[in-house]
Amino acid sequence: MRAHIITIGDEILIGQIIDTNTSFIAKELDKIGVEVKKTTSIPDEKEEILEALDFASKNADIVLVTGGLGPTKDDVTKHTFCEFFNDTLVENKDVLKNIEDLFKHHVKKPMLPANKAQALVPTKATVLMNKYGTAPGMWLKYDETVFISMPGVPFEMKALMTDEVIPRLQKEFNRPFILHRTLHTYGKGESEIAATIEEWENNLPKTIKLAYLPSLGKVRLRLSTKGNDLKNLEAAIDSEVIKLKELIGDIIYGYEDDQPLEHVVAELLKRKGETLAVAESFTGGQIATAFTAAPGASKFFKGGIVSYATASKIDVLNVDKALVDKYSVVSAPVAEAMALGAQKLFSADYTISTTGNAGPTKGDSDAAIGTVFISIGTPHEIFTHEFHMGNHRERVLTKSVNKALELLQKEILKN
Amino acid sequence: MRAHIITIGDEILIGQIIDTNTSFIAKELDKIGVEVKKTTSIPDEKEEILEALDFASKNADIVLVTGGLGPTKDDVTKHTFCEFFNDTLVENKDVLKNIEDLFKHHVKKPMLPANKAQALVPTKATVLMNKYGTAPGMWLKYDETVFISMPGVPFEMKALMTDEVIPRLQKEFNRPFILHRTLHTYGKGESEIAATIEEWENNLPKTIKLAYLPSLGKVRLRLSTKGNDLKNLEAAIDSEVIKLKELIGDIIYGYEDDQPLEHVVAELLKRKGETLAVAESFTGGQIATAFTAAPGASKFFKGGIVSYATASKIDVLNVDKALVDKYSVVSAPVAEAMALGAQKLFSADYTISTTGNAGPTKGDSDAAIGTVFISIGTPHEIFTHEFHMGNHRERVLTKSVNKALELLQKEILKN
Repeated sequence: MRAHIITIGDEILIGQIIDTNTSFIAKELDKIGVEVKKTTSIPDEKEEILEALDFASKNADIVLVTGGLGPTKDDVTKHTFCEFFNDTLVENKDVLKNIEDLFKHHVKKPMLPANKAQALVPTKATVLMNKYGTAPGMWLKYDETVFISMPGVPFEMKALMTDEVIPRLQKEFNRPFILHRTLHTYGKGESEIAATIEEWENNLPKTIKLAYLPSLGKVRLRLSTKGNDLKNLEAAIDSEVIKLKELIGDIIYGYEDDQPLEHVVAELLKRKGETLAVAESFTGGQIATAFTAAPGASKFFKGGIVSYATASKIDVLNVDKALVDKYSVVSAPVAEAMALGAQKLFSADYTISTTGNAGPTKGDSDAAIGTVFISIGTPHEIFTHEFHMGNHRERVLTKSVNKALELLQKEILKN
Repeated sequence: MRAHIITIGDEILIGQIIDTNTSFIAKELDKIGVEVKKTTSIPDEKEEILEALDFASKNADIVLVTGGLGPTKDDVTKHTFCEFFNDTLVENKDVLKNIEDLFKHHVKKPMLPANKAQALVPTKATVLMNKYGTAPGMWLKYDETVFISMPGVPFEMKALMTDEVIPRLQKEFNRPFILHRTLHTYGKGESEIAATIEEWENNLPKTIKLAYLPSLGKVRLRLSTKGNDLKNLEAAIDSEVIKLKELIGDIIYGYEDDQPLEHVVAELLKRKGETLAVAESFTGGQIATAFTAAPGASKFFKGGIVSYATASKIDVLNVDKALVDKYSVVSAPVAEAMALGAQKLFSADYTISTTGNAGPTKGDSDAAIGTVFISIGTPHEIFTHEFHMGNHRERVLTKSVNKALELLQKEILKN
């Protein structure tokens, strides 16, 4: 089963938006054993869309298309589909009712002709009802290829994929199992890891593929395999994971995919019934956001202080002004006092505090750009670490957030 | 000038990462008048890479490739380039020196053979030096097409694009001007806007293209044009912007591209010399993160409280416990008290506070999922607004952050 994903929209080609739909669709397909061989983004132009549909129809069994289904004149996907499939548009009563209901209960404004026109669909298409918007999804079989068209609005597309597209694909096609095991590591670079596991990698069975995914301060190792015998596949891939653990167990912090470090830490805290609070200066709320983006954070996350201005460190976190004057606001003593302040304010078992200068210019301190102090408060002590993370603002911020989570996890595991 | 972008990496095809490189590259090309006609992501497989290079060489003048240049065995781009261009790899002394320097000053670990092999480049390629990593960029002309290969690590690729690729493209090719004007609106849906501006849209010159970009609670309208006479292009597109302002000026909040609402608000505050603090419950630090992600926030952003747990609203923000007991923690009086608490703690001119339930389950309050209260504190008053944002967690969070910024901007503009 080879799938192609086509995302349509000038906004992608001029870089005005980041295409997040492709990644979501690819992940959902991968879970049910459909292999994505190519993804393409093209402009809202009839000729480009026709060419992409033609290429995909010759090279893929399943073609998933998003975008170009809106009510405005720049949206041309539906008409281009009709041209490609030699079809015409007819009004679909169920879709019209869905649009009328959406307007009645949610939009609460009168329907316009353009909204009504959203109910027009190609006669050969099976409608996939869109719960969250007026543009319906469509399912169309042509020769041996299934074409699926979905709106480009991410949450509408996601609901359609989950509720309509995936169940239909599961029914329509026999698929192999695709398995991945991803190991999250920190502390070593990819070439260093590769050298450590070289012999093991050279002896990997041909049916198992290894990939290295480096990002700031972390490397993910992904093992992939596919086939029809789930039990054998699992046994084979898991025995390689066990061998890897023996070789580099000291730098692995997590196993499952979709498991960012903040979730690993959250699970640890919830299991222990312990709580966390944060005091962030230059990271500006990013650590709090990481912990609260997923549901269930109220079970362990008490809250945080974003003490961006120096005065707020003193006024809100009760950092002693004398410390700031003596050591400057970017210093180990201030980081430690911030962690202590947060621990007291929120009565939390663990705290993270950050103070640093991410650049591009120096701030309230003379510390060089890239200088970062991170404190981890535990029920027993406060540990403070100093880092120099270079002069690339975005990189300093991301590396610092990652490093803070890594340090916190290590302390929790010690206790 | 037609460009294609090819991103290589299994991690994209299985949905393990979101491809942000394409968007960055496309935007930089657009700025210098290079039109991206297609972007493609393909796996780390020789055959797929060869096919994509072949297709691009026939359809594009410039082909930009990222990924597959790492030191590990899963990276095959360089060898595949050699096959496609009928070339061989040789060690490049400058690249080797760059790698040695990086190891000496930054990695501070011994170099491994795999790192040294990064200095091998195709003989026909011009090296583009990578300041931040060991994999060099490459520039290769073949028939009439320029091929550019860059590492997939985003900050390495970005530096190469900015410092090496863009200046070389500007020197090598005559390019037209591509102009965009993007208007940010809030408060009306795309079909409603389309109906309001229908006559104007029907009379738009053929050389100017209009696109609607809806996202939660906001619609961006983008006008695009291209040609060789910059002055005439600017006059033509700007006269259409003026006409649009007359038609929908009441819902426009910003003009430039790359200008998220938080930057518009930041500029307003800096110009007035006024300050902001936030008190976030269910938004969990996202508003603080929005304001502090860009440099210069210390000029107006005093800080914030993420009072996720109910107790922290009482303990840290001094919300009266009686209010929580009487109205529940998701209520207008609590939102107001939070805004007041933040204003006092941080001595800020303006404050935003949020309390609500984003789901998927009910929390410390009986309020229905999707119920949101946002308060805006100004130097004179506090205004509180109630919203019902549906039951999609991610959507409730994003809509609430957008709505809070919109409400704040309106209050600042009144004062």
